Amino acid sequence: MNLREQALEMHEKWQGKLEVTSKAKVDSREALSICYTPGVAEPCKEIAADKENVYKYTMKGNTVAVISDGTAVLGLGDIGPEAAMPVMEGKAVLFKEFAGINAIPICIDTKDTKEIIQFVKQIAPTFGGINLEDISAPRCFEIEEALKKELDIPVFHDDQHGTAIVVLAGIINGLKVAGKEKEEVKVVVNGAGSAGIAITKLLLHYGFKDVTVVDRMGILEIKEDWMNWAQTELAKVTNPRGLRGDLKVALEGADVFVGVSAPGIVSEEMIKSMNHDAVVFAMANPVPEIMPDLAKAAGARVVGTGRSDFPNQVNNVLVFPGIFKGALMARAGQITEDMKIAAAVAIAGMVSDGELNEENILPQPFTPGVADAVAKAVIEMASK
Amino acid sequence: MNLREQALEMHEKWQGKLEVTSKAKVDSREALSICYTPGVAEPCKEIAADKENVYKYTMKGNTVAVISDGTAVLGLGDIGPEAAMPVMEGKAVLFKEFAGINAIPICIDTKDTKEIIQFVKQIAPTFGGINLEDISAPRCFEIEEALKKELDIPVFHDDQHGTAIVVLAGIINGLKVAGKEKEEVKVVVNGAGSAGIAITKLLLHYGFKDVTVVDRMGILEIKEDWMNWAQTELAKVTNPRGLRGDLKVALEGADVFVGVSAPGIVSEEMIKSMNHDAVVFAMANPVPEIMPDLAKAAGARVVGTGRSDFPNQVNNVLVFPGIFKGALMARAGQITEDMKIAAAVAIAGMVSDGELNEENILPQPFTPGVADAVAKAVIEMASK
Repeated sequence: MNLREQALEMHEKWQGKLEVTSKAKVDSREALSICYTPGVAEPCKEIAADKENVYKYTMKGNTVAVISDGTAVLGLGDIGPEAAMPVMEGKAVLFKEFAGINAIPICIDTKDTKEIIQFVKQIAPTFGGINLEDISAPRCFEIEEALKKELDIPVFHDDQHGTAIVVLAGIINGLKVAGKEKEEVKVVVNGAGSAGIAITKLLLHYGFKDVTVVDRMGILEIKEDWMNWAQTELAKVTNPRGLRGDLKVALEGADVFVGVSAPGIVSEEMIKSMNHDAVVFAMANPVPEIMPDLAKAAGARVVGTGRSDFPNQVNNVLVFPGIFKGALMARAGQITEDMKIAAAVAIAGMVSDGELNEENILPQPFTPGVADAVAKAVIEMASK
Repeated sequence: MNLREQALEMHEKWQGKLEVTSKAKVDSREALSICYTPGVAEPCKEIAADKENVYKYTMKGNTVAVISDGTAVLGLGDIGPEAAMPVMEGKAVLFKEFAGINAIPICIDTKDTKEIIQFVKQIAPTFGGINLEDISAPRCFEIEEALKKELDIPVFHDDQHGTAIVVLAGIINGLKVAGKEKEEVKVVVNGAGSAGIAITKLLLHYGFKDVTVVDRMGILEIKEDWMNWAQTELAKVTNPRGLRGDLKVALEGADVFVGVSAPGIVSEEMIKSMNHDAVVFAMANPVPEIMPDLAKAAGARVVGTGRSDFPNQVNNVLVFPGIFKGALMARAGQITEDMKIAAAVAIAGMVSDGELNEENILPQPFTPGVADAVAKAVIEMASK
C-alpha cells in the first residue's frame, strides 16, 4: 500500500484525528450538580468578578485555536476551509503529542482580511493562544499584525514564524560547521511570500547584515516597481549592496541560500558560483529547489530540505509545540522576536558539538526534550 | 464542604473539564507522514474534489460547537464570554458523556446580532452542528432563524428547544396521569422569553388548541402595546379566548401551568382556581414559581420543577445529547418541529405505563438509553 492509500485508509478509519474528552466523570446526580448546574455557577461568578480567573477554572490557559481560511494549504493552494480540515487536525495532533496542548482546528468560511481579523478577535476569549495557519500572503501579515495589536493572547502565524525559527536554528548550526560568522556572511532568501519574509526579518533581528531577497520577478530592490507593500518594506532593510537582477546574480559569492520557492530552480552552476562552504536550505516541497546530491557535488558544505528522507530536515514541528507551551506557561501576551530567537538558539543547542556535522545540524522531530527546551527558553525570555 | 466549595475546588483541579486528545499516535516518522505532511494532503485533495468527503475524513460529522455570547448564562444574566466558559465546557462534557459527541465550547466577544450570525456562518465548515447557548431573547430568535436559513447543518438553541421538548414530554405524561386529552385542555405558559416562546410554539405544533402566554406585563393579547416583535407574533396564534389581564386571570380553569419565569409568583389560590387534576411545571431556578408541596396541597395532580431534589425534574439534558446524535447520524440539515416532537414522544415513552405516576412522569438523566431512544426517533423522523 502506498502512502496515498495508507493516508486515506487511516483518515477514513479515524473520521477525525481528534477527540474531545471529558476529565469530569458524570456518573451521578452529585457529579452532574458540580460539573453542570447548579454548581457550575460558582466558577462563572468568580470569573465574572475577575476575568483572570478564567485561567484558573477553565481550559483557556492550555488551549490553542488553529485557525485557517484554507487559502494556502500545504502545496495545494486555495482549497477552501473544509479541505483544510485534515491539516488543521494534524497540526492539533502534533500540539498534543509534542507539548500536551489542547488545540482545536477552526476552518473558516471567509477570505476577507477584515472579516478574519474580526472573527479571531471574537473567538479569542475561549483560547489561550491563536495559531494562524495556511493563510495566503500578503493578507497573513495584515491579519497577524492587527491581531497582535488588539489581543492580549499570543498570535502566531506558523507558516511565517515557525519556519523562520527552524531555519535560523539550522543556519546557526550550519555556519558553525562551515566556520563562518553571522556578521560576515551573505544570505540569499528565495521566495518573498509569508515564510521568506518572516525568515528575512528574523535573520536581520538576529544580526545578519547582508541578506538579499529574491522573488519570481527578481531581486527585491527599492527601485523596482513590481513589489507588493510587504516586499517594498523588506527591500528597504535588505540588499545592502543594491543588487539588481535575478537569483543567479544574488547567489554569486553568497554563503547561505534559503529557498522557500519552487522545485528545481537552482542549478549546479548557481551553487558553484557561491562562496566556499556554502549552506543551502532547499525547502520547496515535495521537490526541493535543488536535490541535495547535486548541491553537494557542486560544492555546498551543508544541505537541508523539507523532506524526511534526506539529512537535515527543516521541519517546523520542532518549533510550534514548544513555543506555544512556553508562551502559555509564561502567560505571555505576545511571542516577541527575542522569544523566537531564544527558541531558535534552543533548537540549535539540542545538537551537541560532538554530534554536529554536515549531515546533522538539527534535532529530529522525535528527539526527546525539544519542545521542553524551546518552552524553557521562551519562558526565560518572557520573564526578562 | 458545601456545593460552592466543591464546585470551585473541582474546577480548579480540572483547569478545564475538557481535553482534546489524539486518536493518531505520532511515535514514528511514518506515523507523522500519514497524520501530517505529506500524507495528509491526500484527504485534503479528496475533500477539495468533493466537499461531502469532509464527513468521511474529518471530525466534522461528530462534532458540535457550543456557542455563547455570555448574555443569558443560567440565572446569572449577562456575565460575558469568559465567565460563560465553565457552563459551555459543562455542556460539552454532557454531549460527550451522554451521546459520545465531540463538543467544543466557543464563547465569543460580541453581542451584536448581525455579527453573531456572521461569526457562526464563518465557523460552520468545521462543525456538524451548532448548539446556541445562553443568548438573550429576543436576539436569540433572529440569530437562530437566520442561521437555519443560511446553513446546511443543524442549528439548535437549546435554551429554547431543549426546554420545549422536555416540557412537552412531561406534559404528555402528565396529562396521561390526569386522564386528559391535548385537544381539550387549557394551557398557560408564564414567561414569554426564549424558553416560553419555544414551548408555546411546540405545544401548538403538537396539537394543543388553547394556549395562553403571560409575561411580566400580563397576558399576551394582540391589542396590547407593550409586546416585543416575538411576543406580538405569538399573540396572533395564542389566547383564543381573548383573555386580558394578569396570570391570575389566565390560570382560572386552566389544566396546565408551565412556568419559566420567577420564584414564588404563583399562589395557592391561583392553583386552587385551576381545573381539577392540574399539571404544574414550576421551573424557575433555583426557587420555583410555587413550591411542590404547596401546589399539591392546593390541588395540583402532577408537579414538576427544574430541581433534582424534587420529583419530576424537567431537565434538558434528557434532550440535547440525543437530538444532536440523531441529527448528526441522519446528516439532517435541520432539526425540524416534527423531529422535536418525535424526541418528546420518545422521552415520554421512556417511562412505561407501569412506572408512570404523579411522582414519576419523566426519566432520570441517568436512565439508560434515553439519548439513544431520542436519537432513534429523530433519525426515523428525518428519513420521512
